[in-house]
Amino acid sequence: MRSTMQQYPLNISQIVRYASTFHSSSETVTWTGETTRRRTYGEVGARAAQLANGLRSLGISGDDRVGTFMWNNNEHLEAYAAIPSMGAVLHTLNIRLFPEQLVYIANHAEDQAVIIDGSLIPLFAPQLPQMKTVKHVIVNGEGDRSLLAGHAAIHDYDELLAAQSADFDFEAASAGVDETDAAAICYTSGTTGNPKGVAYSHRSIYLHSMYVLTPMAFGINASDKILAVVPMFHAMAWGLPYAALFSGASMHMPDRFLQPEPLAAFIEREKPTVGGAVPTVWNAMLAYLDSQNPPPKVDSLRDVAIGGSACPPALMTGLEERHGIRVLHAWGMTETSPLGSVARPPAGLGPEETLAYRLTQGLLPCAVEGRIVDDSGTVLPNDGKAVGELEVRGPWIAGAYIENPNMPDPDAQKDKFRDGWLRTGDVAMISPDGYITLTDRAKDVIKSGGEWISSVDLENAIMGHPKVAEAAVIGIPDPRWDERPLAAVVPVAGEEVTFEELREYLSDKVAKWQLPENWVIVPEVPKTSVGKFDKKVLRQKHADGELQVTTF
Amino acid sequence: MRSTMQQYPLNISQIVRYASTFHSSSETVTWTGETTRRRTYGEVGARAAQLANGLRSLGISGDDRVGTFMWNNNEHLEAYAAIPSMGAVLHTLNIRLFPEQLVYIANHAEDQAVIIDGSLIPLFAPQLPQMKTVKHVIVNGEGDRSLLAGHAAIHDYDELLAAQSADFDFEAASAGVDETDAAAICYTSGTTGNPKGVAYSHRSIYLHSMYVLTPMAFGINASDKILAVVPMFHAMAWGLPYAALFSGASMHMPDRFLQPEPLAAFIEREKPTVGGAVPTVWNAMLAYLDSQNPPPKVDSLRDVAIGGSACPPALMTGLEERHGIRVLHAWGMTETSPLGSVARPPAGLGPEETLAYRLTQGLLPCAVEGRIVDDSGTVLPNDGKAVGELEVRGPWIAGAYIENPNMPDPDAQKDKFRDGWLRTGDVAMISPDGYITLTDRAKDVIKSGGEWISSVDLENAIMGHPKVAEAAVIGIPDPRWDERPLAAVVPVAGEEVTFEELREYLSDKVAKWQLPENWVIVPEVPKTSVGKFDKKVLRQKHADGELQVTTF
Repeated sequence: MRSTMQQYPLNISQIVRYASTFHSSSETVTWTGETTRRRTYGEVGARAAQLANGLRSLGISGDDRVGTFMWNNNEHLEAYAAIPSMGAVLHTLNIRLFPEQLVYIANHAEDQAVIIDGSLIPLFAPQLPQMKTVKHVIVNGEGDRSLLAGHAAIHDYDELLAAQSADFDFEAASAGVDETDAAAICYTSGTTGNPKGVAYSHRSIYLHSMYVLTPMAFGINASDKILAVVPMFHAMAWGLPYAALFSGASMHMPDRFLQPEPLAAFIEREKPTVGGAVPTVWNAMLAYLDSQNPPPKVDSLRDVAIGGSACPPALMTGLEERHGIRVLHAWGMTETSPLGSVARPPAGLGPEETLAYRLTQGLLPCAVEGRIVDDSGTVLPNDGKAVGELEVRGPWIAGAYIENPNMPDPDAQKDKFRDGWLRTGDVAMISPDGYITLTDRAKDVIKSGGEWISSVDLENAIMGHPKVAEAAVIGIPDPRWDERPLAAVVPVAGEEVTFEELREYLSDKVAKWQLPENWVIVPEVPKTSVGKFDKKVLRQKHADGELQVTTF
Repeated sequence: MRSTMQQYPLNISQIVRYASTFHSSSETVTWTGETTRRRTYGEVGARAAQLANGLRSLGISGDDRVGTFMWNNNEHLEAYAAIPSMGAVLHTLNIRLFPEQLVYIANHAEDQAVIIDGSLIPLFAPQLPQMKTVKHVIVNGEGDRSLLAGHAAIHDYDELLAAQSADFDFEAASAGVDETDAAAICYTSGTTGNPKGVAYSHRSIYLHSMYVLTPMAFGINASDKILAVVPMFHAMAWGLPYAALFSGASMHMPDRFLQPEPLAAFIEREKPTVGGAVPTVWNAMLAYLDSQNPPPKVDSLRDVAIGGSACPPALMTGLEERHGIRVLHAWGMTETSPLGSVARPPAGLGPEETLAYRLTQGLLPCAVEGRIVDDSGTVLPNDGKAVGELEVRGPWIAGAYIENPNMPDPDAQKDKFRDGWLRTGDVAMISPDGYITLTDRAKDVIKSGGEWISSVDLENAIMGHPKVAEAAVIGIPDPRWDERPLAAVVPVAGEEVTFEELREYLSDKVAKWQLPENWVIVPEVPKTSVGKFDKKVLRQKHADGELQVTTF
């Protein structure tokens, strides 16, 4: 039996219409390091219309991809509003990618135009000549535009908008757009092979926005002020921009002023209520706040989400107990739009139990089905003990990566999707009440004699030693156990540390059979373009015999 | 460009799976007047599977309609969980309909089976012989089953379930169900013509549930306890049951104990946090609470939604100031799933302005587009002054009424849908910031010399007089002004009131040109089956010359 409900496709243009009409006095606020640049959502709506007209005047039509290479700022939000609403596809280029990756993704997505911040011209300009499809570069703000000359038409963002009408029929432009058509695309900074692209749909973004607003996630309403430190060029800033427009909450964006001092000044001045950032940002912030007397007042922040990697307990308790900022652990990835779970504890527990829940990666919501699976593909129980690779499915989970027939990548979908589930590459436990706890990345877990050893747990244990600055643990081939751990250690500058000392230190912290027998001192741990440990490089160095390993 | 997101249809079976696994210890609690009957969501999941198997054993397949004729209780929630999840369609029969309407809707929906509460057998049994498609009646709880004999197979609810396995593959049963297929149907108790049916889809219920959870609506999370006083046979209990399962919040249901005393005892004992009911229930509750010394403690209720008709300010302030219950005004109708808006005021206003916002019918959310339209179909501005018929559209708004070719109703869709919009029949203003204020029903508004007079405003003004128990105002034909108001007044028992006295009383409360010149005393105002003023009957009486009107 057919329902009698209206056929009303979910579309981002509706979100923009809503924000710019009924929440026309809500604001988007950009920090300049000393003061703010402010626009109302009414103005954002008008400027989004001007931007859409401007892009049409440059020949952008249909589902053309329009890139952004920008910090978090008002104009980036305007691009978020305008581009999908006009039927085109927003491609947020990650400014932290290696140059060759940046070129690859612009070509792979076939970006026709790119909007860039003037301050980022030096990063962007050298790659422009290799971006084959980019016909127009639109520059927002000050910067040396001569660096861009000769490879595309160069436009000034404000001038482009000023020449245009503030009327654009977004509803008509969206009429031919199916809700499952692409609205925005985002590439991961994978450490293996080429970057992989995900195309979010209008539908997936709409549904994800609603989840972001619910109390099980961030609990946002129109009176909230969202501080989006997490970059808008990285996994859609965790969905905060569209959730803000959907609810009428104001957006507060730090532009390039991500250092603790200007960021704290921004918070103290604007009093945001909800925020999101990766642990490194909050880590630096905590150190800065602790160093000030009196510390800047940042306790307007009711909830700050931390995701991207695990939040150390000391960071969570430090921010909360000394500075009044409650931390919410969140889990997700580019392929999950990105919010997969948020660690709000159940009500009514004591402080210790509550903290234990808060240190998990969070409760899976109704719309994100999760399961853990062992090497043979068997689904394991959600008993809080079994450990397997986390697989998820749901309306805002990727089912494939973007393919471009002109740039075929035979490995594009390899090992990432199975029977309609996304294989996250994360190794996890799921508790009976739906909280997930990540223990490792699947490719990093050490498979020793049929048991899995978490490389992350070993690293954290080793890094607990006062003389250790960093430590990475990889699995290396072992004739008897298949794999055994190798610990690569970076001592604190000026310190010397012996392997015997470290083994002794670990002896009461990890099970005996997990204790690494292979050790090496390295000057630094190799990092990916976004600052994560790059264990692939370490494994390669070991395979090439470049590491001087001591074995016990 | 196609997105790369998973094709994951929204389906109620996912909501039930989620509640019964990751929130397996949340509860559904039914009041017996003195104690509670409790089941965990884990048990609800198992019993829903048993119910689905039981219905299959009775031959229910495909999109067969299964009716419920029940109070709000655990078993009704099990029916909500099982029936749409097995691919069948839940039809909640309104126990307050007139007998002939009840027969009409069971035949129109072609219900194959009906689950009824034993306590409702006397209401249901006389109509059963005329329900042509009903082959099975399943009785929940005690009651005289002999009254049902001879017209369908009669089953005991608990026995039916006990004979079945607690395994049912809801995922497989949902595989062939499109998200826009019907999940549940509900008929309005229209005062004109036959009842009209709306078929909600899996998609519309899923999206509506997410909205219910957001802070702009009820802000519900897993630790909440929802008190659903609003009947599950009326507009899906405002979506609370599915929102509860979606979030893991517990459900608290009063069964047939809707009188203030047992209801207050239930609240005092179970401490629900969020509730919903129509004004009459809260009105009686306020009077009861005020009469007790000390009054029962009901302030566990953080928010109670009041909808169905406007909440008198005295009720709102009385519940809040004397009993610690904050009232949320909500607007909607069967055709809007039913939640269309909730009156949460903007933050940061003074008490008077806040109250003014709270007395509106609420803020339209992103997903419910609204506009007001005049008689000629022209869209009026959202300036908080212009008054017109409210039209809405969105993913959980009806686009048509159910049609049954075997029971054709040529007027089924008449005047209710226009260009993809639902004509609500409500007359409203919309403020620039998206709050709607209803002033009347479109069919009741009095059109006098090109201006609209709100019958509701006049009634409220007249009912403010201490000697008036009830008053209804209708428009009657007038050769000069098209229509003029006629006030039908029911005096307080034992009181006499003169029309001169009432006109004098109104003189500083309404504009002079709105002052009724036509008056009549009536013994009572005619009511619909659900207790609303039935002005159609009054208009008919006037047309038939049955009213002795005094004209000034």
